[in-house]
Order: sequence, then C-alpha cells, then structure tokens
Amino acid sequence: MKIKVIVTLKNGVLDPQGKAIQQTLNGMGFDSVKEVRQGKYFDIEINENNEVKAKSKVEDMCKKLLANLVIEDFKII
Amino acid sequence: MKIKVIVTLKNGVLDPQGKAIQQTLNGMGFDSVKEVRQGKYFDIEINENNEVKAKSKVEDMCKKLLANLVIEDFKII
Repeated sequence: MKIKVIVTLKNGVLDPQGKAIQQTLNGMGFDSVKEVRQGKYFDIEINENNEVKAKSKVEDMCKKLLANLVIEDFKII
Repeated sequence: MKIKVIVTLKNGVLDPQGKAIQQTLNGMGFDSVKEVRQGKYFDIEINENNEVKAKSKVEDMCKKLLANLVIEDFKII
C-alpha cells in the first residue's frame, strides 16, 4: 500500500527557501502572500497490506531517516 | 488563511532522489519498501478569507511558479 508523508520545518526554524519563494510571488504580483514555508513530501510504496502496521513502519522510517526531528516535524497522511 | 500544496513528479518521470531514499531504507533493514517518490510541500499564508478565492490564487501561483507542469502535478489540500 501507499503511505504519504509530509515533513515540515518546526515553527520558529528559519526557512530561507520559503522566504525566497514568498518574495518572488510578491514580485510577480501576488501581493496577498504573507508567508511561504517549504517542506518535503514522500510517497512510500510498502509491501504491507495492514494499514496500521504500514503506518507504524513508516513512522519508524521518518524517525530514523526521513525527518531530522531536531528541526523538523513529520505527518503521516 | 493557510493553503497547503503538494507538488509531485508525474508518473513515468524518473526520480533518482526517491530511488536513493528507497535504496537507503532497504539497506537500513526496511525491506518492504518497494518505491519512494519525493515531492515538494508548500504552506502558503495568504491574506484572503474567502477559501474559494484563496485556492484559486494559489492554483495560479502553482501554474506560474511553484510547479513545472511539464513534469510535475500539483494538488491543493
């Protein structure tokens, strides 16, 4: 089954890439954009039909590889 | 209001970064991982209270800047 994960920077962690996107959007005429924060998205195809087990494995992957828990949060969707 | 966007590579477009993550996960003992595809995630804070209008603006931003529609799809969530 397919599990989707979003990894985002924690609140308070500077995001220069998001800031650059925000400024570019403002410069393109999208004046209403106040803030942009960029994160990562993973589509994981896992050989496991039990959803609970699959999500628990993916949680483990996030903790060990996909997210840096010092500065990032992850959400399994 | 806050609008979230996911940008993913279209099916069939090679994703060497996702492949590297998959191989690393396999090497770490997560043998059940069959495929990983990586995408981008954006959290956009926009000065617009009408959800329909906000999403329509964000769709415009995706088409003009955030996604490369030749090789990427976007989804507003």
